[in-house]
Amino acid sequence: MNNPQLNKNGELQHLLSTEGLPADILRAILDKATTFVDFSDGFEIRNAPLLKGKSVFNVFFENSTRTRTTFEIAAKRLSADVVNLNIGSSSTSKGETLLDTVDNLCAMHADMFVVRHSQSGAAHIIARHVAPEIHVINAGDGRHAHPTQALLDMFTVRHYKKEFHNLRVAIVGDVLHSRVARSQIHALTTLGVPEVRVIAPKTLLPTMVENLGVRVFHDMNEGLKDVDVVMMLRLQNERMQGAALPSAQEYFKYYGLTEEKLAHARPDAIVMHPGPMNRGIEIDSSVADGKHSVILPQVTFGIAVRMAVMSMLAGAKA
Amino acid sequence: MNNPQLNKNGELQHLLSTEGLPADILRAILDKATTFVDFSDGFEIRNAPLLKGKSVFNVFFENSTRTRTTFEIAAKRLSADVVNLNIGSSSTSKGETLLDTVDNLCAMHADMFVVRHSQSGAAHIIARHVAPEIHVINAGDGRHAHPTQALLDMFTVRHYKKEFHNLRVAIVGDVLHSRVARSQIHALTTLGVPEVRVIAPKTLLPTMVENLGVRVFHDMNEGLKDVDVVMMLRLQNERMQGAALPSAQEYFKYYGLTEEKLAHARPDAIVMHPGPMNRGIEIDSSVADGKHSVILPQVTFGIAVRMAVMSMLAGAKA
Amino acid sequence: MNNPQLNKNGELQHLLSTEGLPADILRAILDKATTFVDFSDGFEIRNAPLLKGKSVFNVFFENSTRTRTTFEIAAKRLSADVVNLNIGSSSTSKGETLLDTVDNLCAMHADMFVVRHSQSGAAHIIARHVAPEIHVINAGDGRHAHPTQALLDMFTVRHYKKEFHNLRVAIVGDVLHSRVARSQIHALTTLGVPEVRVIAPKTLLPTMVENLGVRVFHDMNEGLKDVDVVMMLRLQNERMQGAALPSAQEYFKYYGLTEEKLAHARPDAIVMHPGPMNRGIEIDSSVADGKHSVILPQVTFGIAVRMAVMSMLAGAKA
Repeated sequence: MNNPQLNKNGELQHLLSTEGLPADILRAILDKATTFVDFSDGFEIRNAPLLKGKSVFNVFFENSTRTRTTFEIAAKRLSADVVNLNIGSSSTSKGETLLDTVDNLCAMHADMFVVRHSQSGAAHIIARHVAPEIHVINAGDGRHAHPTQALLDMFTVRHYKKEFHNLRVAIVGDVLHSRVARSQIHALTTLGVPEVRVIAPKTLLPTMVENLGVRVFHDMNEGLKDVDVVMMLRLQNERMQGAALPSAQEYFKYYGLTEEKLAHARPDAIVMHPGPMNRGIEIDSSVADGKHSVILPQVTFGIAVRMAVMSMLAGAKA
Repeated sequence: MNNPQLNKNGELQHLLSTEGLPADILRAILDKATTFVDFSDGFEIRNAPLLKGKSVFNVFFENSTRTRTTFEIAAKRLSADVVNLNIGSSSTSKGETLLDTVDNLCAMHADMFVVRHSQSGAAHIIARHVAPEIHVINAGDGRHAHPTQALLDMFTVRHYKKEFHNLRVAIVGDVLHSRVARSQIHALTTLGVPEVRVIAPKTLLPTMVENLGVRVFHDMNEGLKDVDVVMMLRLQNERMQGAALPSAQEYFKYYGLTEEKLAHARPDAIVMHPGPMNRGIEIDSSVADGKHSVILPQVTFGIAVRMAVMSMLAGAKA
Repeated sequence: MNNPQLNKNGELQHLLSTEGLPADILRAILDKATTFVDFSDGFEIRNAPLLKGKSVFNVFFENSTRTRTTFEIAAKRLSADVVNLNIGSSSTSKGETLLDTVDNLCAMHADMFVVRHSQSGAAHIIARHVAPEIHVINAGDGRHAHPTQALLDMFTVRHYKKEFHNLRVAIVGDVLHSRVARSQIHALTTLGVPEVRVIAPKTLLPTMVENLGVRVFHDMNEGLKDVDVVMMLRLQNERMQGAALPSAQEYFKYYGLTEEKLAHARPDAIVMHPGPMNRGIEIDSSVADGKHSVILPQVTFGIAVRMAVMSMLAGAKA
């Protein structure tokens, strides 16, 4: 039992990655998240004072207003005190080490860290370093992992498809640079999805991506054939300036999700996107706003899933 | 009843502009604001838990610490949860559309948006787009409108002058670029002020400004003659680098409010300014700090007026 | 009784500097801070609703995420409403004067200002200007003072050494540019420390520093001999680009605190640092993380001391 994400009682101690999380923990998070959604009233979020008196520090070494906001809202709906730290422009630029910054925040009596960092592994390093009563949530580290995004995606899939064991899921786009894709693949395979596909040009796929247990497609029409779930990835603008891609128009032609390409999927397929969307580049507006899209419910479920993770961490026995 | 600011019951649904707001709605806001001020004790603000459990999002596509702070304080004094989003540096720069950003925030269960945007009409577009249980307050859009500023100005006028129907009001300065001036003119005329004047050089007046129902003056001494209220406008520094103005000294000489020029107004005239002031450019320090100035009470009343607007919006039946 | 920090009843009205604060006030702050620490459980901070309904404005004219965060946490643990204003990028750049900005915030009903400013004396100017029911805490002004840092240092010294009257204390490093050093020297001498030493190269000492009542050393081994407390100062990176210092390596060789140099101090000496640390420049990692170091308890005590100052100010009779 050397899993850095679980304590000696097998409870969730940190959320760092969907890789290595057992299926029953994943399911427990999804079940817990269900208690924060009132489905009778169009996905209304239910508040709960489970983090009253606790201090949650949003420590963002890389700026992300959207992700920070979702954690801030989730923490406030659990009655936590929330402190936002945009560290990019702060102490680390003054020469302080990452762990000195963390030690200082611990000494201010943080109960929970939400960490976004451009370096893969940063959240793991922090989790290994802090005292046992302090919990760490990875809000995205380099190209490595973005587990709350993957968990909200799993919540969304389960909400619309009920089961995982009978699904075909396609992940489309820039898998190479995507921490979201890595976390999705681990979560989907752990939860028993029998067929996970990735669809991308060769230049946007990691070498030996097959080793993650996925089927590789370079053609959208083939890759989308008969899938139940389409998970689009965001195409980082900066990639388009590099050599990896010819042009946005070219990319959209081959890999942008249009109604025409989506017609190859199952008639009841759902379309997901982690946001923010580049309309007309990775996804056509008619699909983004169409009847298959569950992109906005994903956002609502994201609040519930983050509330679930935070309340489970706060409830773990140190 | 196609007013985008009112719901089908005639209640305030959004606050987008003073243009098109009926006089009884304007008066209802001012009356409501009165309940948040304790006049017995030097304008003390009274707190009230009217927005308990509601989430107010300050969505600022254009930076304004001062305006954001006034809304943040007003919302907190109503016990709302407040989330500040400085979007300038965030998702929109990542290629996301304005409405996608708004949809995402709605999916996080915003109850109210306070929107500042450099484009005229942005708040209207958002208001037209959101679900009926979500309310939008325009905190300044381009050159178009800044209704809470105008409303706090009306509150201030009514507090010191009791009535509107017997007043002469002069608005002085850069009317051309001022969303504040537009909102003031609409509010003053709706509330029955018989004579609204604008005083400015021709280069700082919109063409056909007379169509707004104002008298135009280019000379301060003539324009200020016998007025009850002087509303100064802020001169944007960036204007002075353009061709519109000769120099700050020259501007002050002709349009800066001095005691000498103010002597042409009525002896009990009040002087207002929306802040931040450029002392020695649009207003002399002896006037800004003098006995006619009600500039600081304006700020206090601004909190009460914003509390009034927020609590009225929250009370509208969806 | 013309002390700007005390009201007519001799109570703490503002905290601007440790200079001029009577010993009994310093001791009262330390005693009050003790009530916010639960020593039975590894320095746990105790919350208290002493600032419920009060508005604390963190007004930072100079950016400092770390200092702002400590005040934000302290205020929230006292149940205050906290508003953060990073003014550097805001109104003052719009031409507004410091005192106009302050007047505006007062008109929004601030109860307490926490002020950081690059100009020495800024907090004094604000304190002299505001109404008697408003309290000002200096969170660092130019090279002048940083009183809460000095107070948390005193709390730390008293916690580990019990008494002040029998101590030798050495302050090491860039005394010339340090507001922390000035505030420490005043607090230590007021509290009765019989021997305060400063250790630094001549280029990093103010002229006539002896007039502050300190003994001057240029050699670490001599200066550290038999001291009970070592207070390291942060070396600002920007100093190393100037002519004042040869190089970081050279500085570390002569003035960096190593175990070897520390061996000249008393065996039970404590080592302090205000953070953020430059490891390998002013302090060796083996000392920073060693058994003499009390650097992280300083941070925890800093929350308690700031809670003490805020609650004493809030309790002063206007």
